[in-house]
Amino acid sequence: MTGSVQPRQAEVPQRYDVFHTDCLARDVVDHVTSRWGVWVLISLRSNSLRFYELRESIQGISEKMLAQTLRALVQDGLVWREVEPTTPPQVTYGLTEFGREVGEPLTELFDRITRRLSPNGEG
Amino acid sequence: MTGSVQPRQAEVPQRYDVFHTDCLARDVVDHVTSRWGVWVLISLRSNSLRFYELRESIQGISEKMLAQTLRALVQDGLVWREVEPTTPPQVTYGLTEFGREVGEPLTELFDRITRRLSPNGEG
Repeated sequence: MTGSVQPRQAEVPQRYDVFHTDCLARDVVDHVTSRWGVWVLISLRSNSLRFYELRESIQGISEKMLAQTLRALVQDGLVWREVEPTTPPQVTYGLTEFGREVGEPLTELFDRITRRLSPNGEG
Repeated sequence: MTGSVQPRQAEVPQRYDVFHTDCLARDVVDHVTSRWGVWVLISLRSNSLRFYELRESIQGISEKMLAQTLRALVQDGLVWREVEPTTPPQVTYGLTEFGREVGEPLTELFDRITRRLSPNGEG
């Protein structure tokens, strides 16, 4: 049946195929699981933190890398950023609802690994 | 009370503090959430795969990076590796019990992100 309307598969390409490089979800997964993204999300799981508090809680992160990681997570809608117009300005970061949704399995992942590797673990 | 036996905190240092750079759990978390580690673990979630099958399922990964990622995951005890002595040898990879434990929240993370970002998602 030439001329019939074909399901336009080309237009709904890799919507669920996050293995594909041009998938939006893949970018977000990459940010969440990036070298520092995972530690930022886990650090923020219980409460919001100032920039310098985040920096102190994550050993080995540079100011530049923290700023870059936070920028990506804010853009993805996982982290909110609030600036208080004091001198100097105080910047606070916290998890959005989406950030909390994603932070939950990340914390579970992290707990399972530490439990398994702890000397007294049930592993 | 000088001379009394102090709890030797220095010997049980950052056991649960995976934010610390010299923590074993941090290495494993870093491998699991590495650029490619996450995709390898997710690819293996339903069944074991040959090297070339893994390579085909993860768009953008080079042979070198896949080999390196698999080596780290095998060393961590997350992935098993089986070599059949055929010519050429057939190498198969699959998740260990620990790998499955860790793969579960990783898959949940991945599902929550794709659900939220899908055009028909409940996000």
